[in-house]
Amino acid sequence: MALGKGYDRQDCAFARALELLGERWTLLIVRDAFYGVRRYGDFLAHLDAPRAVLSQRLAALVEAGVLERRQYQDAPVRHEYALTSRGEELWPVIYTLGRWGERHLVTEPYRYFHHTTCGSRLDPAGSCPTCARWAPPAEIEVRPGPAADRSRTDPVSVALHEPHRLLARLL
Amino acid sequence: MALGKGYDRQDCAFARALELLGERWTLLIVRDAFYGVRRYGDFLAHLDAPRAVLSQRLAALVEAGVLERRQYQDAPVRHEYALTSRGEELWPVIYTLGRWGERHLVTEPYRYFHHTTCGSRLDPAGSCPTCARWAPPAEIEVRPGPAADRSRTDPVSVALHEPHRLLARLL
Repeated sequence: MALGKGYDRQDCAFARALELLGERWTLLIVRDAFYGVRRYGDFLAHLDAPRAVLSQRLAALVEAGVLERRQYQDAPVRHEYALTSRGEELWPVIYTLGRWGERHLVTEPYRYFHHTTCGSRLDPAGSCPTCARWAPPAEIEVRPGPAADRSRTDPVSVALHEPHRLLARLL
Repeated sequence: MALGKGYDRQDCAFARALELLGERWTLLIVRDAFYGVRRYGDFLAHLDAPRAVLSQRLAALVEAGVLERRQYQDAPVRHEYALTSRGEELWPVIYTLGRWGERHLVTEPYRYFHHTTCGSRLDPAGSCPTCARWAPPAEIEVRPGPAADRSRTDPVSVALHEPHRLLARLL
């Protein structure tokens, strides 16, 4: 990219995080991983990212310990990508940025996030108002909202037309 | 940038937020605004961003209602940039991303964040363990940590060698 990717003189952990996660497409890959997307072809069809960019971003996330690459099939050999515990810790970033966009940049919600334990919709900070505690991603169900685009036909978009528990395999 | 900036087919408020905030330097500008940086020259000296890029990013943040541009001097006319209430709502994103970077990408903290009300250090979610509630940015003091770089001599870096309340004018 024209501007380089480092923030060498920025003296903060936030800048280090941005050097990894601020690259174009990277946070959308992480978002999809929370939705349960695991295979290269599914990321590709859903994100419309150029192949080379997607491959580079996945490799960088694996190298940083955000995603784990593992073999799920022998013949032919196939790999998939899943969030590590370090990657799962990014949920507050993904959730709060999405809710900020929802409040300020769109007219209606694309998706709702509910607590699987009680069914309540989460508050803007990611806590469950009924259970009075923060909900970890494994206890969250994503459901289509009124603005969800039902015209897309790639497998990820179609699967997300139904409620789905975060981190659980989507396809 | 080579990859364009839109995520046209990404059906979510998160992608809309990234189109604005995912541009290189933008979130570092927002971070500095939380530290109380207000003037173009101070952002420029602290961020080392190219002038044209900084100007474009500031204009985009004003247009999106994240920053407000206001005149603070008559002769000569000078403007400064301050976070709006919409901008202040980005604090959870900035804070949680920074703490994630601190846990996983650096060896020692660059900065600490304390609750001004009681002096306690905030937890990774941005809540005060003593007061048992989330701390809004106006109640947070940033203090230099053990990894803080004391070699930089730009006015923002020097001012941040001392504890400072977020959102309060730094210079």
